[in-house]
Amino acid sequence: MKTIILTVDDIRHIAQKVSLNRLMDDLIERLTQTFATYESEKYVCPTRDGFTYDEPYTGLVEWMPIMAQGSQATIKVVSYHPENPNVHQLPTILATTSAYDTASGHLLGLTDSTFLTALRTGAASAIASRILARPNGGTIGLIGAGAQAITQLHALTRVFELKQALIFDTDPQTSHSFAERAGFLGVPVEVLSQSQLGELVSRADILCTATSNEVGVGAVFNDDTCKPWLHINAVGSDFPGKTEVPLSLLKRSVVCPDFPEQAMKEGECQQLSPSQVGPSLVELVKRPSAYQHLTDTITVFDSTGWALEDQVAMQMMLDYATDLKIGHFLQIESVSADPKDPYLFLKDKPKSPNLNGHYAIQGA
Amino acid sequence: MKTIILTVDDIRHIAQKVSLNRLMDDLIERLTQTFATYESEKYVCPTRDGFTYDEPYTGLVEWMPIMAQGSQATIKVVSYHPENPNVHQLPTILATTSAYDTASGHLLGLTDSTFLTALRTGAASAIASRILARPNGGTIGLIGAGAQAITQLHALTRVFELKQALIFDTDPQTSHSFAERAGFLGVPVEVLSQSQLGELVSRADILCTATSNEVGVGAVFNDDTCKPWLHINAVGSDFPGKTEVPLSLLKRSVVCPDFPEQAMKEGECQQLSPSQVGPSLVELVKRPSAYQHLTDTITVFDSTGWALEDQVAMQMMLDYATDLKIGHFLQIESVSADPKDPYLFLKDKPKSPNLNGHYAIQGA
Repeated sequence: MKTIILTVDDIRHIAQKVSLNRLMDDLIERLTQTFATYESEKYVCPTRDGFTYDEPYTGLVEWMPIMAQGSQATIKVVSYHPENPNVHQLPTILATTSAYDTASGHLLGLTDSTFLTALRTGAASAIASRILARPNGGTIGLIGAGAQAITQLHALTRVFELKQALIFDTDPQTSHSFAERAGFLGVPVEVLSQSQLGELVSRADILCTATSNEVGVGAVFNDDTCKPWLHINAVGSDFPGKTEVPLSLLKRSVVCPDFPEQAMKEGECQQLSPSQVGPSLVELVKRPSAYQHLTDTITVFDSTGWALEDQVAMQMMLDYATDLKIGHFLQIESVSADPKDPYLFLKDKPKSPNLNGHYAIQGA
Repeated sequence: MKTIILTVDDIRHIAQKVSLNRLMDDLIERLTQTFATYESEKYVCPTRDGFTYDEPYTGLVEWMPIMAQGSQATIKVVSYHPENPNVHQLPTILATTSAYDTASGHLLGLTDSTFLTALRTGAASAIASRILARPNGGTIGLIGAGAQAITQLHALTRVFELKQALIFDTDPQTSHSFAERAGFLGVPVEVLSQSQLGELVSRADILCTATSNEVGVGAVFNDDTCKPWLHINAVGSDFPGKTEVPLSLLKRSVVCPDFPEQAMKEGECQQLSPSQVGPSLVELVKRPSAYQHLTDTITVFDSTGWALEDQVAMQMMLDYATDLKIGHFLQIESVSADPKDPYLFLKDKPKSPNLNGHYAIQGA
């Protein structure tokens, strides 16, 4: 009764075998299928909870549990530490996800979710944009040019022909390094300055906000001129008091949350009353033709990050791991021949280290 | 930035090197120290939450988070599936605990906690009994003879001279296999039948209830004759509606919860009003002399299981692992030289499999 652990080497190995584009395409497809067939009574998904603190640095560690009834519970533990890049040379967001068999409680697997969180957040925006944005809108504006901006742009290139990306980050270095980081996507990048932020918004067909904006600071751009069909993927708002989009613009828009209950607490929707909130992502995906007219209006995808997306992303990686025979299999839980003897396993013979844990040779 | 994983082999290796008795003694000592110096403002400990269900079998998966301010968050995920022994030949309780550095959110470690949960539940009862039971009380009664009963008895043998153990389990096979499972403790075992349950209670100096009693069924023994100094470790009550001790007996007793807020929801304390609840385990340990008179009265330790105990138990194992150079070190989180490039790690060279993950050779 082992647990499969996908390490960073395993995930690299899978991504190299499958290709990054194929992973993104597959995730967009799987999430679309999951949303299209979603029935709320088949899942239990409490809104996330967590620890927040200001010492030693501002941060939070939170857990995002979801259970697919009669099959599997997954819990993503995700942390957010905006000082990480400067202080620890680590990403702002670190995450792992564990999955449990609800027949027995057994820990089925543990995977990195830092990469998968970025991937699924991009994929969700691609799905929302495919329904809400104009198909021929070729200019994307990115406010916030960190890790999430890369996967946002990547995901959009999988479903749109993008002509250019307009970039702004409060940190000029982050702005200027974006072109290199996103170079593999082949989208021409134009860096704009703080004073050109209005121009960035006005030129964008699709706008993505993915900032580490602080709680209570408010919008990361002004509600000036924008295209009447602008679609916004608001990705950074994920905490009570943290928002990115001006309220006046939200009120002129159709705002579509990923997980309405959570978005009302942590997303752009916290600026709105329930009656001002539009259809959810699930509703959009279930009946895309009913919402086709929204491509002519201003729309906001309020992406707070949904545990269901993490469950689907993890399952995708586990499926690839199985197919490709990649992964570390460890016996973590202490079980033995007699479940009523908690000490019996101590008498078992230790396994040979050569058989212990390594399933496939990395890079082989 | 690796994560240490303690597998069942690693834990066996540690237990073999250190000895089981030393592990239990150390845990009793560490928990006593932790309780004695406990200050509630240094921890954040939400009551546990989880998923419960009846399909495919009755069960629950729950998470027990705790944060030591400015240092570490741990989350134990524990499952309870009473059909596990019969259906899957697995223990009723399966658990793992993960620890996170709150400076960065990094997953520090993941350990089995099936063994550690049993160990710390025993240790907590030993600590409560050392304060609340008569030091020369040599007869222990055990109602419920499964896995938890073994560690309850084991822990008590570390702090008392026990003369005999009286056993009852609704499953006769479990009753009769107890003597063999607990044989290493050297305590004479006498198995009693359902009709002798009153005798078991009346002969006990210390009574332990550790059953899989169902929700709503009520007490697992009757409130008949018992010694006026009886101390009860009520271990099985850990869920709303699940209790083991008769209300009339509770009302004649001083009831001491491990984690009062949780015990009021899930423990024996849910049968009581707040004013009927006695000092907590922390209060007992902080001022044992103030409660010495309780050894002359009937007392109940209402043990629901506290995330703080799991944090201490995990830290103990991590300390031994470090000292003994035991454990699996895996790079799970996808980090790279540029925290703003979520894909950069995909370009890293794969590590040699020989260096990947195995720190010490098991059993070496």
